[in-house]
Amino acid sequence: MIDQHCHSVLAGDLDDAAFAALLTESDLPPAPGTSRWESSIGLAVRRWCAPALGLPALAEPADYLARRRELPDPAGTLLRAAGLDALLVDTGLTAAAGRPLLPLAELGAAAGARVREVVRLESVAERTARDAAGPAGWLAATAEALHGAAAGGAVAFKSVLAYRSGLAVPPEPPSAAEVLRAAGQWLRGPRTRLADPVLGRHLLWTALDCGLPIQFHTGLGDPDLRPADGDPALLADFLRTAGPRGVPVVLLHCYPYHRTAAWLAHCFPHVSVDVGLTLSHTGARAAAVLGEVLEVAPFDQVLFSTDAYGLPELYLAGAAQFRHALAVLLAGWQRDGACTAADAGRITRRTSGANARRLYRL
Amino acid sequence: MIDQHCHSVLAGDLDDAAFAALLTESDLPPAPGTSRWESSIGLAVRRWCAPALGLPALAEPADYLARRRELPDPAGTLLRAAGLDALLVDTGLTAAAGRPLLPLAELGAAAGARVREVVRLESVAERTARDAAGPAGWLAATAEALHGAAAGGAVAFKSVLAYRSGLAVPPEPPSAAEVLRAAGQWLRGPRTRLADPVLGRHLLWTALDCGLPIQFHTGLGDPDLRPADGDPALLADFLRTAGPRGVPVVLLHCYPYHRTAAWLAHCFPHVSVDVGLTLSHTGARAAAVLGEVLEVAPFDQVLFSTDAYGLPELYLAGAAQFRHALAVLLAGWQRDGACTAADAGRITRRTSGANARRLYRL
Amino acid sequence: MIDQHCHSVLAGDLDDAAFAALLTESDLPPAPGTSRWESSIGLAVRRWCAPALGLPALAEPADYLARRRELPDPAGTLLRAAGLDALLVDTGLTAAAGRPLLPLAELGAAAGARVREVVRLESVAERTARDAAGPAGWLAATAEALHGAAAGGAVAFKSVLAYRSGLAVPPEPPSAAEVLRAAGQWLRGPRTRLADPVLGRHLLWTALDCGLPIQFHTGLGDPDLRPADGDPALLADFLRTAGPRGVPVVLLHCYPYHRTAAWLAHCFPHVSVDVGLTLSHTGARAAAVLGEVLEVAPFDQVLFSTDAYGLPELYLAGAAQFRHALAVLLAGWQRDGACTAADAGRITRRTSGANARRLYRL
Repeated sequence: MIDQHCHSVLAGDLDDAAFAALLTESDLPPAPGTSRWESSIGLAVRRWCAPALGLPALAEPADYLARRRELPDPAGTLLRAAGLDALLVDTGLTAAAGRPLLPLAELGAAAGARVREVVRLESVAERTARDAAGPAGWLAATAEALHGAAAGGAVAFKSVLAYRSGLAVPPEPPSAAEVLRAAGQWLRGPRTRLADPVLGRHLLWTALDCGLPIQFHTGLGDPDLRPADGDPALLADFLRTAGPRGVPVVLLHCYPYHRTAAWLAHCFPHVSVDVGLTLSHTGARAAAVLGEVLEVAPFDQVLFSTDAYGLPELYLAGAAQFRHALAVLLAGWQRDGACTAADAGRITRRTSGANARRLYRL
Repeated sequence: MIDQHCHSVLAGDLDDAAFAALLTESDLPPAPGTSRWESSIGLAVRRWCAPALGLPALAEPADYLARRRELPDPAGTLLRAAGLDALLVDTGLTAAAGRPLLPLAELGAAAGARVREVVRLESVAERTARDAAGPAGWLAATAEALHGAAAGGAVAFKSVLAYRSGLAVPPEPPSAAEVLRAAGQWLRGPRTRLADPVLGRHLLWTALDCGLPIQFHTGLGDPDLRPADGDPALLADFLRTAGPRGVPVVLLHCYPYHRTAAWLAHCFPHVSVDVGLTLSHTGARAAAVLGEVLEVAPFDQVLFSTDAYGLPELYLAGAAQFRHALAVLLAGWQRDGACTAADAGRITRRTSGANARRLYRL
Repeated sequence: MIDQHCHSVLAGDLDDAAFAALLTESDLPPAPGTSRWESSIGLAVRRWCAPALGLPALAEPADYLARRRELPDPAGTLLRAAGLDALLVDTGLTAAAGRPLLPLAELGAAAGARVREVVRLESVAERTARDAAGPAGWLAATAEALHGAAAGGAVAFKSVLAYRSGLAVPPEPPSAAEVLRAAGQWLRGPRTRLADPVLGRHLLWTALDCGLPIQFHTGLGDPDLRPADGDPALLADFLRTAGPRGVPVVLLHCYPYHRTAAWLAHCFPHVSVDVGLTLSHTGARAAAVLGEVLEVAPFDQVLFSTDAYGLPELYLAGAAQFRHALAVLLAGWQRDGACTAADAGRITRRTSGANARRLYRL
């Protein structure tokens, strides 16, 4: 099983408030009188993670947190219970709850899984900007860093354009003059957050030159994201013009626009759809949501991931939820006469790992 | 059980055509050869209301209407059968089918429920405009009326911005100069329908100053509404800037954008999602639709209502449908191992009334 | 059973690659290492068509294709197995996989069904443009051709505006001066593809004058379509102003915007929703998708079709899938107590054919 998009975790103790703060995509405190545990993801963690810690499924939050504190290595226990063979880790996030995430090698060792890096485009460009003397030098350094990442073992790029200028990307690359002008202007600012639409688009075309698959954040995210900017439908023109390059594009998360994303995968053979984050957060409804993805997405273009971040629980809950949802869905298909057991096995093997192996040449 | 958004009803007799005309959100006559009863809401009324009138469930429309005419007080019978403890009534609508709706005190007496008022922002502003001498006086009178409503027992404001200039609200309040200019211009017109976007936005910020929760019409409505204007995704920027005021915002109806609304509730702790109107109108599919809301909406931020209007049947059908849909959904979750009976009980109590009690300080 | 929107088929042999190329809405080759059969539509064809060719349901693709080649008349066998009484055929497509589609009379004979023509607006305008001397003459010839089609036995018009300038149609017809100017400009081009928004809108109002129902492509299509341009929500203003003309409008396909389309049908009595293409392509999930359509669409405004094109398999898979999905859905409604067996029978008869008979005066 290949987790084709995830983040590292916090290994040590977590107080109850810090734990709850990571049990949501929101970075805001819960409303007075409410609890982050009262949610689909709260139920999913109690369901899938309590047994891994020796508690009954759906143990109460207080019991769960108490038991977690008693164990010598809850993170390792949970990560190994997820049963993942490889993790493709987006290294664009380096901390959670104000503390550094586990380095990749340690994450892999704790999970008993191979680890490969997914390089975030905007992070590279912001890093090369720190010491850049001018626009041309910065653009060259960024291109060099991206080519270097591709040559140096990264398996994919990740774009957070949805959070910056939004996914409404014009179909053609910007002209060199436009890029230089935008670069000059951006470098005169604080160089901390790349949100210029011309530069964001330029990064995509630079990445396309490197040949690595590009993962796009689409759909639900934190309060910083405008939902309408993350609709994968907005990428259609870019996908049409970029297609002939032969570079795979992966639409991450997608919810609640996952049917639109699945349709784009139906239209464009170089586009795949990911169900990470979405299945973890939709809890008992995950089988229905996964079914919606498989309505029109070709089965060879659907990818498992967890999008786990911060809490090792999100690895286990994400993986268990995917396995369970897919099993429930395909058992229903077989009962209905819609597929054979062999079909169900093939769909399971491909979405769980084989599609990712093909796509990322693992 | 607290019906956190509804309207009053017609108490007396209704001829068959007037009844059918209220069995839809449309204000247009049905197509020749078709009947308003041939719909999910038609089935729901036959299912849930016929037994309350002493008929078998799913009695034929003609039998239902005949039986209704025989009873001395069908409205009271239906309202009491809904089993509601409190009604939060939007008083922005005062008539249906050309006849006046029951006054609030009579509605409460008939239903055996406490009644509290939800004040419609646009109605207040249109009322204060009638005698306003000029822009400054009108704006002051409107602010005074809203503060007066808040002090005088109203539990919430309601905005129908979706119907007027649409939900694409810029994040910041308009400047005083912009507001005065827009007010001057609007007052030179017939003063009947406030659709100016600057004034609509100004009303929101005036309401935020009053501290009462604000309910927004979002999602499906009558033919007057442009669907794209009612997408709650458009409110994201306003929700982000208004959040620090600590004023609760409730997204009403939401369908078919209810998953987007649920995601906004996931992101923003001051935002809640309502399922009124939606569950009544989606009939046998209500459990699935409610499941979609509970995918990513925190359970403490989901609210029951009926959005009943005109027909007392819509109170009973809405309440019965919610109870049934939630029971079916949570029974499925328990069978699947996704929650315990205690979890299901807590989710039921909170969405049925406790969340509304907390939010509106009832 | 009336297939209210479909296309003709290829009658003769098809090699395996040509077959697979028609088993998708995409016109692009599949990604290396993937197969078009690995999809909901692939499963649906194996499920519903293999038995018609004397194979077990869900026979493997290679076995299916081999068996198909052995049969003297696979197209006729499949078409007759679909059990359709009438086909309303959009003649805007004349070839598939580079080969001509079966003429209408032969299609009808092969299917054992009456055939009626649906005339594509843009095709008529592009055809009359070939010999047009100038704008006024072309516009007159186009109007004449459309009136002639209506008088000559066509049952409906079809608009592919979603593919051209998109469905965001202003509510009023363009002025004569605007139309003449746009016509003059377009005629100076290659006259091959009518994508001018003023002319597209003018075609709609010309069609409204003819009185025939107008079918609109909405929702999913091939890679040439921008998803956001096909959202039926964009038609709301046009539907509101065109409604008083009394001309039926049919929203085709609609997925993934089918709930929005259903809501438009709820609001506007002259609007109906079609489930063709969508049910074929959503496979084992078709009952859930059909349920979503029936949530708020009046049952008298929902229409069956297959949107079959090229492969006769798409007729049989589409019809069988509709029958099965509707039966599964309504059996669930009855088990839940949401409708009676008589209700289910009536909904089945109407959506399968009676609604189309009423709408197209068949």
